[in-house]
Amino acid sequence: MADKRKRRRSELNPDGEAQLPFKNSLKSDSIILQILKEFSDCSTAPSSSSSKTLDDLGLSSSCREVTDLSLSSVQSTIEDLILKIARSILSGNGFAFDVPSRSAANQLYVPELDRIVLKDKTAIRPYANISTVRKSTITTRILQLVHQLCIKNIHVTKRDLFYTDVKLFQDQTQSDSVLDDVSCILGCTRSSLNVIAAEKGVVVGRLIFSDNGDMIDCTKMGMGGKAIPPNIDRVGDMQSDALFILLVEKDAAYIRLAEDRFYNRFPCIIVTAKGQPDVATRLFLRKMKMELKLPVLALVDSDPYGLKILSVYGCGSKNMSYDSANLTTPDIKWLGIRPSDLDKYNIPEQCRLPMTEQDIKTGKDLLEEDFVKKNPGWVEELSLMVKTKQKAEIQALSSFGFQYLSEVYLPLKLQQKDWL
Amino acid sequence: MADKRKRRRSELNPDGEAQLPFKNSLKSDSIILQILKEFSDCSTAPSSSSSKTLDDLGLSSSCREVTDLSLSSVQSTIEDLILKIARSILSGNGFAFDVPSRSAANQLYVPELDRIVLKDKTAIRPYANISTVRKSTITTRILQLVHQLCIKNIHVTKRDLFYTDVKLFQDQTQSDSVLDDVSCILGCTRSSLNVIAAEKGVVVGRLIFSDNGDMIDCTKMGMGGKAIPPNIDRVGDMQSDALFILLVEKDAAYIRLAEDRFYNRFPCIIVTAKGQPDVATRLFLRKMKMELKLPVLALVDSDPYGLKILSVYGCGSKNMSYDSANLTTPDIKWLGIRPSDLDKYNIPEQCRLPMTEQDIKTGKDLLEEDFVKKNPGWVEELSLMVKTKQKAEIQALSSFGFQYLSEVYLPLKLQQKDWL
Repeated sequence: MADKRKRRRSELNPDGEAQLPFKNSLKSDSIILQILKEFSDCSTAPSSSSSKTLDDLGLSSSCREVTDLSLSSVQSTIEDLILKIARSILSGNGFAFDVPSRSAANQLYVPELDRIVLKDKTAIRPYANISTVRKSTITTRILQLVHQLCIKNIHVTKRDLFYTDVKLFQDQTQSDSVLDDVSCILGCTRSSLNVIAAEKGVVVGRLIFSDNGDMIDCTKMGMGGKAIPPNIDRVGDMQSDALFILLVEKDAAYIRLAEDRFYNRFPCIIVTAKGQPDVATRLFLRKMKMELKLPVLALVDSDPYGLKILSVYGCGSKNMSYDSANLTTPDIKWLGIRPSDLDKYNIPEQCRLPMTEQDIKTGKDLLEEDFVKKNPGWVEELSLMVKTKQKAEIQALSSFGFQYLSEVYLPLKLQQKDWL
Repeated sequence: MADKRKRRRSELNPDGEAQLPFKNSLKSDSIILQILKEFSDCSTAPSSSSSKTLDDLGLSSSCREVTDLSLSSVQSTIEDLILKIARSILSGNGFAFDVPSRSAANQLYVPELDRIVLKDKTAIRPYANISTVRKSTITTRILQLVHQLCIKNIHVTKRDLFYTDVKLFQDQTQSDSVLDDVSCILGCTRSSLNVIAAEKGVVVGRLIFSDNGDMIDCTKMGMGGKAIPPNIDRVGDMQSDALFILLVEKDAAYIRLAEDRFYNRFPCIIVTAKGQPDVATRLFLRKMKMELKLPVLALVDSDPYGLKILSVYGCGSKNMSYDSANLTTPDIKWLGIRPSDLDKYNIPEQCRLPMTEQDIKTGKDLLEEDFVKKNPGWVEELSLMVKTKQKAEIQALSSFGFQYLSEVYLPLKLQQKDWL
């Protein structure tokens, strides 16, 4: 009985590995490595979108972008602003903040940059107006708190910030929103303000970097990997002999690749935010891409949500478009699981899931987004998804055996340069 | 204006730190360290509940517990079971599994052990019965898959397991539930089956351990810390010069303590599961406590949910009571934020939150739980919470300054041995 079963369940048969779909198409690792080296070398050349700035496009006067500022610059910018306000008050004019608008109408997707940017519309926020007195007070208070963070040189979370003056802020959405305003007013990134988001990402593989002064070797982080630091400004000294960065949507796939030490077979850095990308992971990914000049390949679920996640890494979220230059990683390639993979790799029917009405709507909405339309390959894949009304998780590959992902699917994808 | 404001906002005044509530009560660090050393030494002595077993209490025949088994033992146990089944079939009796019941009626809180255990009721799961044929088929399939994991010596997630046979399992709750059954049938922990849960915990501080062969020094993990490995069986060689383990409910408090390197001022290991405890973090905490013989102090929100989290670490969840011996950490002390701290530390009214109806119900339910009733101090605190109908997050301490937690609140708690 055992033998018969073994034949039927080929994925678990230690001797029957040739039966794994496409296993026979795999070339030797050295050939795949050669392919990756060529790909990696190409990526070292500045790509069209990554190197361009608003300046290059003549958009710097009509669009607004923030930059990383040193703590002392943030401090002096705040001091200058407050001095200006004091003068305005002393001259009998009261005071007002000139706050960049972050509404949808003020957002713009710039194809040449392949990301969303903020246009230059601003709104006046006077203190002496019943409708804005609260917001201008909150703005002043946040400026004061950030000023103190600069002096103390410590990092706090948005939650900490809220709790320093609950009476004034009332609820956290108010302090959070004004914090984004303050970034825009000062023209600096939120990380420059030393206000950080809780981290949830992990990284493992061929990367060495310093976290707050400690040198971390990510090949020596076992299976758990290294938690991505919440404060990017204390991350530095990145070194790597990797040929690419593998961006993974989900934890389970990450664990498989970490345990199999996939990065030793194909030198790479594996990173995941365990679902929805958080700011810390987005900043970390961009920093790796920029400093190490490595191509980024994304492994996400074959559903609209997977592509949405890819888009947040790639071209940013509308909410933080003012900082898209620092938060986005240009030129991420969609490796898999792509809708066309479902048939190509013979994913069994029962491992495919029917898309819900909401899924289909999200998919159709995505087809209208500029960042998708820009890439004909993506349009084709997404159209196929919406047409077949089928989705699949990365884990669907487990139907061919637990290690099919790391032993066949990914190597074959790399060998065939099968990314878009 | 700046001066006036500074006086009012004492928390942010670098010179006015004496104004911080209770800052004056703090003794020198060397005195606090002496207190901690004495406490730590006491914890080295076997505590009453941690050392007892079901055997000691004469309960081993009426209660059921699983143990960690080596991969080869799991493999041979499965082979023995299947051989027995084959013989039963050949002798014309068909086959059935004898499955321990995991229903609420079969759960028991044992005060002497201070944790929930599973009683010995079992149910027959015959193949030749229309109502159990599916479940017995799934059980056989899971046994086969686990057997292959033993041979391959790899770890997979519950999600991976589900996807190996979606047609049979239909939805993941079915394969998950039978996986727990299989643990009980084989008498081994779920980790022994090499089926792991996605990790989300992080650890930082005075701990060195090996993760899958790599030595990790948690004092050199920057601010991000080390991600807790999902597979406890590959964690070992724990060494530490810490005096206690600080178990933190939330990410934000963890970040504060990690950035301030609190563990260097008061030698400790800081660990968090970022909310609801996951299996990996629970196993890791227990392993630390057992191997390093360190006291565990818990810092959770002052709400019923915080106490609930403490209870899951301490005495287990009902769902996995069959493995409570391995998953629970005995003798966790409730350090804070305790309901009595709200008045004691003058937490401002606006930083306290009114409890919802649901909160109050949960609080009252907890008062009926054995593990709470056992500890008169906890009953008193929880009764106070329910009476005042007020809750507060750890971050509420930020109202006295961002570093009040690490610079005043925690040192004072330690100095006063203010835990329950």
